[in-house]
Amino acid sequence: MAHDIRVVTEQELRSVIGLDRAVTDVVEKAFSALAGEGVVMPPILSMALHEANGEVDVKTAYLPGFDGFAIKVSPGFFDNPKLGLPSLNGLMILFSAKTGLVQSLFLDNGYLTDLRTAAAGGVAARHFAPEEIATAGVIGTGVQARLQMQAAHLERPFERLLVWGRDPGKAAHCAADLGEKLGIAVETISEPGKLVEQCQLVVTTTPAREPIITHDMLHPGLHITAMGSDQAGKNEIAPRVLAACDLYVADRLSQCELVGELAAAKAAGLEPFATAELGAVVAGRAQGRQSNRDITLCDLTGTGAQDTAIASHVAQLLAGSPTGTVITT
Amino acid sequence: MAHDIRVVTEQELRSVIGLDRAVTDVVEKAFSALAGEGVVMPPILSMALHEANGEVDVKTAYLPGFDGFAIKVSPGFFDNPKLGLPSLNGLMILFSAKTGLVQSLFLDNGYLTDLRTAAAGGVAARHFAPEEIATAGVIGTGVQARLQMQAAHLERPFERLLVWGRDPGKAAHCAADLGEKLGIAVETISEPGKLVEQCQLVVTTTPAREPIITHDMLHPGLHITAMGSDQAGKNEIAPRVLAACDLYVADRLSQCELVGELAAAKAAGLEPFATAELGAVVAGRAQGRQSNRDITLCDLTGTGAQDTAIASHVAQLLAGSPTGTVITT
Repeated sequence: MAHDIRVVTEQELRSVIGLDRAVTDVVEKAFSALAGEGVVMPPILSMALHEANGEVDVKTAYLPGFDGFAIKVSPGFFDNPKLGLPSLNGLMILFSAKTGLVQSLFLDNGYLTDLRTAAAGGVAARHFAPEEIATAGVIGTGVQARLQMQAAHLERPFERLLVWGRDPGKAAHCAADLGEKLGIAVETISEPGKLVEQCQLVVTTTPAREPIITHDMLHPGLHITAMGSDQAGKNEIAPRVLAACDLYVADRLSQCELVGELAAAKAAGLEPFATAELGAVVAGRAQGRQSNRDITLCDLTGTGAQDTAIASHVAQLLAGSPTGTVITT
Repeated sequence: MAHDIRVVTEQELRSVIGLDRAVTDVVEKAFSALAGEGVVMPPILSMALHEANGEVDVKTAYLPGFDGFAIKVSPGFFDNPKLGLPSLNGLMILFSAKTGLVQSLFLDNGYLTDLRTAAAGGVAARHFAPEEIATAGVIGTGVQARLQMQAAHLERPFERLLVWGRDPGKAAHCAADLGEKLGIAVETISEPGKLVEQCQLVVTTTPAREPIITHDMLHPGLHITAMGSDQAGKNEIAPRVLAACDLYVADRLSQCELVGELAAAKAAGLEPFATAELGAVVAGRAQGRQSNRDITLCDLTGTGAQDTAIASHVAQLLAGSPTGTVITT
């Protein structure tokens, strides 16, 4: 029996979806589902291609309450810039959760991943940031530095933003972009410690392998979202920070133990401390921030659940639209 | 930088590729690469969707000597026939092994899997079947029963073929199809034991969970290829057969221990016995059949290496052809 598959390019996707609270809502729904019954989220399939300085990750998750499930393939080939190509590429495939038939192919080159990753930061800000944020800060100056601050600002409309990056030129560029995008005062700052000191909400977005945020920087009423670490060996947050927080939240504990900030803390023998999964807090099954003076940390490593969420959301946005190329098979 | 992705449907694929010795050759090359240095073949990513009576497997492999690598997604949704849909679907994605860019999307609904699976049987026949096959036999009556016999016949042009299946009507239909396809005498037979007794080459192609071939059926000069078992719990060959053979060959030992005939033999405590990997024999690194009287068994569970092989082969066949839909992204 023939059926139609919609193939949608990155450019077409950019014309129909951007970062907004609807994206955060659907990602929040995915985290809630992840805390419930009937979820299936296998470990990430990961393949390193050493000869090409490349790697490929495959993520997926089946979530009750979603009509489809996504399989996402994310290649990262780090010599590509020498060839004038981006390092990151990839696609998402949306399948019917009822029949397994391919419904859509999103040739997004990582665009949907960028959105769903930022939206997870939005969910973290929604549930863990203090109600009043005077100043937010971002560590890092890349795509996620920008998107994370946009997602956070949708939840907590702060009026002042600080940016720190190793490269002052990139930090200045990022600050200018965010000032324009958010219409607020954005400044660069010379040291991460000075940034944290002034902020109630901090997001770290770097591929650091040595901690940038240390426990001496902590102060009451601080929330940190760490989203840079997604591989063994990456580490933005010093182990003692996890132990010093009132609450450490993982997007998925089993994954954060391997590739998140929790890995270094475990290696340092700093367990046990108060932990929860993001989905459990979203679903009301675990406690989040208890007071405006709490110090909280949310560790985001990226889940297949978010991919299923955003792919399903895009498919709904596209329903009935002529966007993309329809292939009958 | 924009690049082109070719999207090819099952129907288009069927117009350009069928089962021939070139397919067996490229799959043989993949097995040879699998025995060498630099291969990366992660464990299968598998997700069961119990609510929908479905499952999804993702396989991949990087093989030195191939310009691309495939990621294959195989959904199996076993209530689909009630909806008038096939149980098996899926697609293969071919990536550049140099840049990770998507090159082709083969919306094959399992057709390329059928071919590469049969071709592995062809490789097994090429390397393990006695030189002279008077009579071949197939256990099972489905798509693979037909394709396995075609692949074997390309390697060993036997003149007589026996078919056994639980359902005599399906067996008769399969025999008629194979008689027409191969232009030889094909008969059904009432019992598996009688089939094995008369054959020098037997291929088992069933989803059996209780052994069909038992050690009392063995005779000198027999080769068996067992390709039906690809999941824990499936079992076509009694454990004692593995121990009684002169040589047991796995497509991948680590995988056959989990989902192949080797699993039951291990569970029965029947190790150690003479084992080899198919690729090692193909590459001349391990010994195959030693005499016309040897009894050999080849256990095929399906590898990502075969997917990379056939996807690369199809891409070569399509190079410069207008087949498919080109999407610029």
